[in-house]
Amino acid sequence: MELRIEVICTGDEVLTGKIVNTNFSYITQKLEDFGLSVQWETTVGDDRENLLLAFQLAGQRADAVIVNGGLGPTVDDLSQEIAARAAGVDLVLSEEWLSRMEEYFRRRSRVMPPNNRKQAMLPAGAEVLDNPIGTACGFAVDIGRARFFFTPGVPRELRRMLEEQIIPQLLAKSGMQAAIFLKRFHSYGIGESHADTLLAGVEDLVPDGSVKLGFRAHYPQLETKLTVRGKDMDDIRRKLAPVEQEVRRRLGNFILAEGDQTLERVVLEELTARQAALSLVETFTSGQIAARIAHLPGAGKVIRRGIVVPDLAEVCAAVGLESAALANGITREAAEAVARAVRQQTGSTHALAVLIEIDDGADRIDIGGTVCLAIATEHDVASRRSRIVGGREWVRLGAVEMGLDCLRRYLKALPVHERIDFEIAEPRVAAAGAKPSS
Amino acid sequence: MELRIEVICTGDEVLTGKIVNTNFSYITQKLEDFGLSVQWETTVGDDRENLLLAFQLAGQRADAVIVNGGLGPTVDDLSQEIAARAAGVDLVLSEEWLSRMEEYFRRRSRVMPPNNRKQAMLPAGAEVLDNPIGTACGFAVDIGRARFFFTPGVPRELRRMLEEQIIPQLLAKSGMQAAIFLKRFHSYGIGESHADTLLAGVEDLVPDGSVKLGFRAHYPQLETKLTVRGKDMDDIRRKLAPVEQEVRRRLGNFILAEGDQTLERVVLEELTARQAALSLVETFTSGQIAARIAHLPGAGKVIRRGIVVPDLAEVCAAVGLESAALANGITREAAEAVARAVRQQTGSTHALAVLIEIDDGADRIDIGGTVCLAIATEHDVASRRSRIVGGREWVRLGAVEMGLDCLRRYLKALPVHERIDFEIAEPRVAAAGAKPSS
Repeated sequence: MELRIEVICTGDEVLTGKIVNTNFSYITQKLEDFGLSVQWETTVGDDRENLLLAFQLAGQRADAVIVNGGLGPTVDDLSQEIAARAAGVDLVLSEEWLSRMEEYFRRRSRVMPPNNRKQAMLPAGAEVLDNPIGTACGFAVDIGRARFFFTPGVPRELRRMLEEQIIPQLLAKSGMQAAIFLKRFHSYGIGESHADTLLAGVEDLVPDGSVKLGFRAHYPQLETKLTVRGKDMDDIRRKLAPVEQEVRRRLGNFILAEGDQTLERVVLEELTARQAALSLVETFTSGQIAARIAHLPGAGKVIRRGIVVPDLAEVCAAVGLESAALANGITREAAEAVARAVRQQTGSTHALAVLIEIDDGADRIDIGGTVCLAIATEHDVASRRSRIVGGREWVRLGAVEMGLDCLRRYLKALPVHERIDFEIAEPRVAAAGAKPSS
Repeated sequence: MELRIEVICTGDEVLTGKIVNTNFSYITQKLEDFGLSVQWETTVGDDRENLLLAFQLAGQRADAVIVNGGLGPTVDDLSQEIAARAAGVDLVLSEEWLSRMEEYFRRRSRVMPPNNRKQAMLPAGAEVLDNPIGTACGFAVDIGRARFFFTPGVPRELRRMLEEQIIPQLLAKSGMQAAIFLKRFHSYGIGESHADTLLAGVEDLVPDGSVKLGFRAHYPQLETKLTVRGKDMDDIRRKLAPVEQEVRRRLGNFILAEGDQTLERVVLEELTARQAALSLVETFTSGQIAARIAHLPGAGKVIRRGIVVPDLAEVCAAVGLESAALANGITREAAEAVARAVRQQTGSTHALAVLIEIDDGADRIDIGGTVCLAIATEHDVASRRSRIVGGREWVRLGAVEMGLDCLRRYLKALPVHERIDFEIAEPRVAAAGAKPSS
């Protein structure tokens, strides 16, 4: 059966826009990943009358309701009180949760403040939903015809409770097969509709319909998702294997990472594995390439140097090159010379130079940039030239990703240049020489 | 009278979390700025039944309802159709909007596709809300006891329609004084509750209650807002003058910018005005300081060089200093030496060096970092030492802001060191030497 699921977000901070409601988009996405759909979302403030009405209305319409927020210790946290009223029961002290909280504070060498006691007051008959990392007690209770799940507003507490306790209950309630798995592929260079075309029919490799394909585009990356249902994880692995193999085959070198892995961590791991040291030269990306990778744990010994030179005319001076190298604007050869020079200058094993010439004029959607990038090692150099159009910020984001992705390709011995959906042909004759070099 | 205002957001992309609902937080914040409050928000998908129910329920409860999305040309854009059903009227073609759209396409040398005609179908009797920058026609219509305002999902179209047409109507409906003005101050280093204490009573400088004080904290910055109502802008300026003067007096040097101005643009303007060239050295901030300022229009000639050195042990080599300078960990003196060295090395007039020693161990809320930063010019140097605790990302964000803010203070001839709310006393003896130098 398809469950009718609603979400109620509570709190003045969300209702007044002081914080953007990312908890809701997290909840609904996570449910989608498990084949569950939210039909209706309501946000109300810390207000008894509106909370009660929201609970009652959802209790009339839905099978399951997830309520977020209002479980804290202060007077404006009203979720337990109004849940009890809506359910027509009393608030009672949960001795179990009270001792859990006292233990929580004891382990942190603190005494529990008296107002935290409020967090152990639950509607009579409520089922406790454990919160192993906070003092807000989750709980489930029936209101009207719906099962209500009350969750904390702190994102990491919400996440853990949703994934470990609420989603399994919802799946059981919906009568779906118990085991479900989400496989994700991250790519750069393929747009959503192109990927959709490339992957047409992959779901049908498992004829019983238990594999579902989906996408999530966040420029410049695209996430390709396979949701797989099965009896158990063995069943899932068996179903998933031919489909994921086919996805890898069709998206090919464009897949930059899978699952929780990221592009910058793939690059860092490749460099770490060969005890390499990397230097970077950036212009218009203004430090964003360095900022993506250099903050990662373990990057300190691998990222030797990042050099940001917003003015192209200063690039040669910054890396100790004669200024003639960039006299005719940017070229692949110039990028190669800069990468070679910075590698030598800093004594690193690898160097990435990303030079960008941005169109003149006020920012607008048809402002473009020409990117020449190069990767140098002691005995080798690879480069590519590309043109991206879509406004200054669009070019900048695209160039950051292109720089990191070409470095990944180089380190994985893949072609540094493959045509991507975000680049356009250059209108100039000069572009004729811009063939892939590797 | 206080209006009861509701917002209804529509669309599968928002309901499934494919996009985060920033339109809602924009709408509610903007209304708050004008003294209007949203009491209830509902999100439903592109679904006839749920849309109709949402319109009917809001029409029973509210005085005014803002509906966002669903005005596009495709079959899943349902707002006009369901609005007509809920209002009990027919959909009729607006000749006025049809010719506006044809004109819109003509000016772009394009022929209007036939399915755009749908966007000119409005509920009979609806009032058109102009959209000067798109083809989605806004409109207002009564449903139940409420006035409904239908707005486009494209953010810039929504913004313009809300500010130019809907808010004035809501203010008129609420009987509030017609003119309203929002004055904003941006600060770094003062927490929200501290600012609230510092500014206690400023609203009372205008006894008729037409000035309202508010805050919006987005670490590391705090926004202090004064909403002023009056007969007209002259009246508002007269009321605002003594209050804004008092806010400036009490928040003092912590105010880094006002209105639409930003910290990075203040710094850039100060540097540009003196034809200066700036070089930066960053460690743990990994390029984020450069990325904040170097992408701004006009920064190319001012930001001479950004140098990112994640490994403190490499800092001396990067700026041509003897490695003894950092042998005993970071100090203010070491930061000063690094700033002086990079200024000389790059031939810039100004240099900022931000050195950070981050606590060892896995990331957690009590991980801290010690920041030593220095600003050097040809004949002068200023520095400060500070300790920030709150996890790696918290330290990084705080240090980026501290670096830029100290540079602003230096350029404005303000003390580089004033105690901020986000720093803690250092537990070590070494900290005894860390007095303000300027």
